[in-house]
Amino acid sequence: HRGQESAGIVTSDGESSQAFKVHKGMGLINHVFNADSLKKLYVSNLGIGHTRYSTSGISELQNCQPFVVETLHGKIAVAHNGELTNAVRLRRKLMRHGVGLSTSSDSELITQLLAFTPPLENDDTADWVARIKNLMNETPTSYSLLIMHKDIIYAVRDPYGNRPLCIGRLIPVGDMNGKGKDNSETEGWVVSSESCSFLSIGAEYYREVLPGEIVKISRYDVQTLDVVPRPEGDPSAFCIFEYVYFARPDSIFEGQMVYSVRRRCGQQLAIEAPVEADLVSTVPESATPAALGYAQKCGLPYVEVLCKNRYVGRTFIQPNMRLRQLGVAKKFGVLSDNFKGKRVVIIDDSIVRGNTISPIIKLLRESGAKEVHIRVASPPIRFPCYMGINIPTKEELIANRPEFHDLANYIGADSVVYLSVEGLVSSVQESIKARKENENSLKTQKSRVGKIGHCTACLTGEYPVELEW
Amino acid sequence: HRGQESAGIVTSDGESSQAFKVHKGMGLINHVFNADSLKKLYVSNLGIGHTRYSTSGISELQNCQPFVVETLHGKIAVAHNGELTNAVRLRRKLMRHGVGLSTSSDSELITQLLAFTPPLENDDTADWVARIKNLMNETPTSYSLLIMHKDIIYAVRDPYGNRPLCIGRLIPVGDMNGKGKDNSETEGWVVSSESCSFLSIGAEYYREVLPGEIVKISRYDVQTLDVVPRPEGDPSAFCIFEYVYFARPDSIFEGQMVYSVRRRCGQQLAIEAPVEADLVSTVPESATPAALGYAQKCGLPYVEVLCKNRYVGRTFIQPNMRLRQLGVAKKFGVLSDNFKGKRVVIIDDSIVRGNTISPIIKLLRESGAKEVHIRVASPPIRFPCYMGINIPTKEELIANRPEFHDLANYIGADSVVYLSVEGLVSSVQESIKARKENENSLKTQKSRVGKIGHCTACLTGEYPVELEW
Amino acid sequence: HRGQESAGIVTSDGESSQAFKVHKGMGLINHVFNADSLKKLYVSNLGIGHTRYSTSGISELQNCQPFVVETLHGKIAVAHNGELTNAVRLRRKLMRHGVGLSTSSDSELITQLLAFTPPLENDDTADWVARIKNLMNETPTSYSLLIMHKDIIYAVRDPYGNRPLCIGRLIPVGDMNGKGKDNSETEGWVVSSESCSFLSIGAEYYREVLPGEIVKISRYDVQTLDVVPRPEGDPSAFCIFEYVYFARPDSIFEGQMVYSVRRRCGQQLAIEAPVEADLVSTVPESATPAALGYAQKCGLPYVEVLCKNRYVGRTFIQPNMRLRQLGVAKKFGVLSDNFKGKRVVIIDDSIVRGNTISPIIKLLRESGAKEVHIRVASPPIRFPCYMGINIPTKEELIANRPEFHDLANYIGADSVVYLSVEGLVSSVQESIKARKENENSLKTQKSRVGKIGHCTACLTGEYPVELEW
Amino acid sequence: HRGQESAGIVTSDGESSQAFKVHKGMGLINHVFNADSLKKLYVSNLGIGHTRYSTSGISELQNCQPFVVETLHGKIAVAHNGELTNAVRLRRKLMRHGVGLSTSSDSELITQLLAFTPPLENDDTADWVARIKNLMNETPTSYSLLIMHKDIIYAVRDPYGNRPLCIGRLIPVGDMNGKGKDNSETEGWVVSSESCSFLSIGAEYYREVLPGEIVKISRYDVQTLDVVPRPEGDPSAFCIFEYVYFARPDSIFEGQMVYSVRRRCGQQLAIEAPVEADLVSTVPESATPAALGYAQKCGLPYVEVLCKNRYVGRTFIQPNMRLRQLGVAKKFGVLSDNFKGKRVVIIDDSIVRGNTISPIIKLLRESGAKEVHIRVASPPIRFPCYMGINIPTKEELIANRPEFHDLANYIGADSVVYLSVEGLVSSVQESIKARKENENSLKTQKSRVGKIGHCTACLTGEYPVELEW
Repeated sequence: HRGQESAGIVTSDGESSQAFKVHKGMGLINHVFNADSLKKLYVSNLGIGHTRYSTSGISELQNCQPFVVETLHGKIAVAHNGELTNAVRLRRKLMRHGVGLSTSSDSELITQLLAFTPPLENDDTADWVARIKNLMNETPTSYSLLIMHKDIIYAVRDPYGNRPLCIGRLIPVGDMNGKGKDNSETEGWVVSSESCSFLSIGAEYYREVLPGEIVKISRYDVQTLDVVPRPEGDPSAFCIFEYVYFARPDSIFEGQMVYSVRRRCGQQLAIEAPVEADLVSTVPESATPAALGYAQKCGLPYVEVLCKNRYVGRTFIQPNMRLRQLGVAKKFGVLSDNFKGKRVVIIDDSIVRGNTISPIIKLLRESGAKEVHIRVASPPIRFPCYMGINIPTKEELIANRPEFHDLANYIGADSVVYLSVEGLVSSVQESIKARKENENSLKTQKSRVGKIGHCTACLTGEYPVELEW
Repeated sequence: HRGQESAGIVTSDGESSQAFKVHKGMGLINHVFNADSLKKLYVSNLGIGHTRYSTSGISELQNCQPFVVETLHGKIAVAHNGELTNAVRLRRKLMRHGVGLSTSSDSELITQLLAFTPPLENDDTADWVARIKNLMNETPTSYSLLIMHKDIIYAVRDPYGNRPLCIGRLIPVGDMNGKGKDNSETEGWVVSSESCSFLSIGAEYYREVLPGEIVKISRYDVQTLDVVPRPEGDPSAFCIFEYVYFARPDSIFEGQMVYSVRRRCGQQLAIEAPVEADLVSTVPESATPAALGYAQKCGLPYVEVLCKNRYVGRTFIQPNMRLRQLGVAKKFGVLSDNFKGKRVVIIDDSIVRGNTISPIIKLLRESGAKEVHIRVASPPIRFPCYMGINIPTKEELIANRPEFHDLANYIGADSVVYLSVEGLVSSVQESIKARKENENSLKTQKSRVGKIGHCTACLTGEYPVELEW
Repeated sequence: HRGQESAGIVTSDGESSQAFKVHKGMGLINHVFNADSLKKLYVSNLGIGHTRYSTSGISELQNCQPFVVETLHGKIAVAHNGELTNAVRLRRKLMRHGVGLSTSSDSELITQLLAFTPPLENDDTADWVARIKNLMNETPTSYSLLIMHKDIIYAVRDPYGNRPLCIGRLIPVGDMNGKGKDNSETEGWVVSSESCSFLSIGAEYYREVLPGEIVKISRYDVQTLDVVPRPEGDPSAFCIFEYVYFARPDSIFEGQMVYSVRRRCGQQLAIEAPVEADLVSTVPESATPAALGYAQKCGLPYVEVLCKNRYVGRTFIQPNMRLRQLGVAKKFGVLSDNFKGKRVVIIDDSIVRGNTISPIIKLLRESGAKEVHIRVASPPIRFPCYMGINIPTKEELIANRPEFHDLANYIGADSVVYLSVEGLVSSVQESIKARKENENSLKTQKSRVGKIGHCTACLTGEYPVELEW
Repeated sequence: HRGQESAGIVTSDGESSQAFKVHKGMGLINHVFNADSLKKLYVSNLGIGHTRYSTSGISELQNCQPFVVETLHGKIAVAHNGELTNAVRLRRKLMRHGVGLSTSSDSELITQLLAFTPPLENDDTADWVARIKNLMNETPTSYSLLIMHKDIIYAVRDPYGNRPLCIGRLIPVGDMNGKGKDNSETEGWVVSSESCSFLSIGAEYYREVLPGEIVKISRYDVQTLDVVPRPEGDPSAFCIFEYVYFARPDSIFEGQMVYSVRRRCGQQLAIEAPVEADLVSTVPESATPAALGYAQKCGLPYVEVLCKNRYVGRTFIQPNMRLRQLGVAKKFGVLSDNFKGKRVVIIDDSIVRGNTISPIIKLLRESGAKEVHIRVASPPIRFPCYMGINIPTKEELIANRPEFHDLANYIGADSVVYLSVEGLVSSVQESIKARKENENSLKTQKSRVGKIGHCTACLTGEYPVELEW
């Protein structure tokens, strides 16, 4: 669910370094793949895939991942999530060396850096770990990578751990029915940005790839090859936006369920910004955990006020004045009997441009709401992301526009309050710290992860590394 | 949202009885229509449309509605929701008269009955009302109809009112922004099976078409032509399944919101079948109103335990053993932290075949639920519907199978209880009766609607009319 | 190759009169059918198909043939080639009887007339021959029909024989390799508008269906049921345009190959309109037989001057001024070395609107032709066809426009001459008459076919029957 | 018409070296491009395109040309026709330098060689001519290239001139109607593999790019930058197969029309292998010029015996035994009246595998031909091509199989004779030599083209350069 622009799969027969099977295409997975293309790909039990969500790089087939390149030591396939903070300098460096670049994608830079890494002189064996570490020296963040060569997949996360990556264990079929899961057998290994994907293929969450870690995965074995450290003193910088908006609620990051973080954000918001009202509701569906948290903390009933209109999709109608005025109302049904004459608190997960919530408020008022208060379960976004999240331009962001100063009036609400940055960070780190302290007393793995932090650049403008142009 | 098999629109220029524009196709509306086909249809402000949900009649383009036929008095277009209880006899009667029938659809019977209606001898003027009444004499139920001829649309509901039909009023664009809606002006009229469709085009609910009523709609006028009565003593028979499952929660039937009925079903279920537990939840998303009603009545917290996996659609993969065993788990994410070690009550809206709920229960147990109790917010379905709802065969219905006698064990639940038929009927009729009594004291419209009842044939086997073969 | 607007196939299992399989769609056969749809259709060895070339009736899926209707005696499927000269009166007659007509197609009239035919009172057995004869009494021409019911196909040609229809015999596979074809066995029967289709499925030409003949085809048997005569004195009226333009050159009508008729037209044209020149050529490719006939009769060399540009198809480019001026030149390559400085005679098969030949002449002159003379191997078309051929409106036909009086100048040719009507008719009838005389002396079949004639209505305005409106 | 596997266009705005527009796709041009994609491409009057006919390189979107790469000096787009004889060595060399190769296409090698060319140290200006000459030093043949950078297109042909390339001049629109073409104005320049493409866009043939020539094309100017010579003594090596089979008959190579060469081959064949017969015919349509030449030289009539079945395309039917036995017969109609009882000579342009002509001969015999003699207007193909033509494997070639020794019997002909290699070469070179002598006496351009020869490798095994692996 993380990328809907393009999709691709590369499989290896595990023996020849030349015999990759590749299928890629624009659009959703269901458009790109069918029974025939999957059959073609089925040459062994080894493969990597990618769905693209465009940040840098134009939306073109050429940019579809995984990328496959032939090197002196055979073909490698590379899937990349992230965006390089020093891409411009790296492009120039590669071109100066004489490499023609055929895409605008950062991911091509990564494949060429892997192909190119010195020493090339007496390079008779391919030392992929050396090449990966060299790549990590060239660029600090952000990248989570899968690199396939012959019968091995390398899973790599940048030293700042900005993008997620985790490992799952395929449970043998027979055991899926067993009551007790004490089986030590493993049918295979899977790697994914989000753990939510494991359940749907019968795998279970095993562990995260650590910031800076290079993991070597073969059929029966998962092995840490190295953990490349950050510069002294730099904390890790996992993207806080993954918790707020991007990830699926049933995914697990840093030992905690995303849903729980969102509910805590709602609870924290109730502490920071309570309101006298009759009921708490949500803009379906991503803000529901926060709304339930808010309602519970306030002691107000949680009530549904809108239902989603499932069949409103991409519309093909030339919008005339009537339809433009209806706007977002098309997407929702109104459960007016549930709130007529009541004071309503609506919890939203974010207000980015401000043009979605406004017509909803109008709709609720027209259908009989006495008051409409907006509580936003995240802080306002004010800065661009250069590390893999596609955020509107600074000018489009409501928080940077004059209207923000009288936002309640602008969107037609009786009041509107955002969660504070501190509130968000504490909601995210609360249980990590609790667990950390517990772990510290047990002296486990401390050295490997280093100081824990989160990237809040889009909220604060404080980027974890210096940006290069 | 009521039919996804095919879609069609017929428009009239309102002047010639020959100049209909027609566009129909298989599949969802978004597949059938595009900007070009809509432009072609745009000849005036008059038209009727249809989305098909197949009951009788094979799934073929030929069966797409609206049907257009040319008669001695020009073309008519007909859209039909329902299924005729005496279709077999009517087909034979028409063919004996020499009419070749080109589809297996009941709706073609209706068009041919309208074309064919005597007296044909000195039939120089087309008396469409006489033809419609003749049709209503030929067949008692079930049909809600739109019949377009030249510049008029007739909206007709069968005397038992088995299928829904209601009228909306298009609000002038300018007024949509006005605070007070005291405008008496009307921009036009729309008719729909469900009132939920009005909001998304800027219309507002006006009233239901009554059982047996023939309504004539012209651009500025809605006029009752006649109300054809039922046989003495027969109550009306609106389909109770519309409340339970079929309709969208924000629709209004018989003066009440479907969502409210479903919540009352949940409340009634809490009275009929309480359970000692830690939390109440739902199988997303149709059972949510009942779950909130149950939770509130019991005083237990409402908690989410599953989240929908939006990107699981029609899968193209040949299901191997692994995927077959995963089954329904693919469709959901599990929010295990929310219920680990807890006793869970799951409210479902219906258990038809029993093969959906069973893997969900297993999933919850494997993810840590201590107990799983199932409460079903409707009675078991035991009988086929011959009046427009596509119900599995008797043999497939779990309520007719031996497993039903030990259902909790069969599906793996700690307990399972259905809502009673009486509980459902009272949840549906409670507020109608309250309003009715109120109206009766005011002596309004009493004679027009007659005795109020609901069709519960699929639950009880008591059909509102005798079935003919 | 006769119809590219839509295609359809209906198959019967040969046992039930209800179990037809139908697949139809807009466009070429290759678009409409694929392996899946063909597999679905394959229920027995019995079926009829149709490709539509629109004359009357709008281009819509609804009008796709074969038509299937259910009658009192089971389903029939009907494929129709032709156009009824009294369609308007028949429509009104059917609607007065109470039949609603759902298409504008003449072919629906035919199916309803077959469903409707009296006597219906004590109609316990379906006498299809009586129904077909009744249809033939209702309408004189033009129709070639295939009517399928259960395990029988009726092949019918109207009494004037205006549209073609012939029967082929499927040769057993084993015998296809045998040198001597003295096998009397038959694997099955096929019926087609044109005999050219037989070769490509391994069948051989058997015979034509005679004007007015009703042939009953079962798996192993072809049987004449009746030959309905024309009014006293009326000659048969096979469409002469089939010879001139419509049919494929390797088809056989009335005992002669179309190619031979076209070559005779070229020879006749050489007699009627010789010219002093250096070479004879053709506009590829339909006029090649006439060009070879003309060249041979004149004693001039046959030389190619143009080659077809195979990859110019439906163009998607918005034609700018440059491309509009290029016009037809896009479709051809010019073999200029073959005619530079020479006097060229170009044989064309017809000049309908005059806007195709003109840019070709210009192209030849610009590429070095000294003189360009046009000879047209058919007479000018002046009148509309109401019997199945789609001819431009009278106003569009070059022969009805003022420019025709100075045509050579208008199109830029040194001279232009058409074949005479008498020349065309004698080229067509020459070998038929020779064979007829021979047959007459043998006294065979004389009574069955009656006086032989051809429909030349589009050339002369003399229609074989009176047209009704 | 030269490539049907994929198509692509790249346009430049002529100002920025970054702003290329690219559209590519698999399949025919009409599938790949539509009005929208063309509109997107229309940024100026500058662009290059490519249609791919696969030789080396798998059939994948990745291999679609033109290739675009970004270099230190901006983007270049490259379209390549041909195949490099030292590709394997060049791949290894590039990978050793650290370049990862993302396709198996020779054309990527060319783009990377252009990007990579030394000296890179103080490379502040992009000397594209030096880079192109360096490329030409790295690989001798075969390539015809278009290289676009900013506002310039370089047209390059390898020193052996193995693949064709020629330049056309766009005629101003106004002049296209003028009688006399003495206009010296030019609206623009076009470059193409074959001159036949010029006519269809309103351009006229200007001249060939010479073997080894680097031509710089700007909007108003065509300028020779250099002509890179071949090794001393090597003749040029234009592919003789272009004349025999590949090119369109209306194209001009080396000053002569392909059609004329083919007709001369037919005449030469009549001298080398006459036969006593009644008529000469062709397998439509590519052998028609040779057949007309043969017929004229022999004094026998040219007669058509087969007509093409236009609507046989890619068939979707699972071929059963019946259809397999029919084989090629599906593709043709038989004009049996034209040759019944006659002795037929069929001219074919080549017999590669032998499985096409055999069923045609059988068809003609079954339809009444008394004798069938085959004359092939080219010599037998015996060797693979490594320079851009996709020839079946040695084992598949009929000339390398035992059956070749009794070919007439094997294919069922009364006799079969091929044109000799000498006969072909003289048919090709006859008029070139005549013109050459004429030119020599005039002392023009002699030094630029060098000794004239043709590549006959597929017929003789004599490759123009040594092949490297």
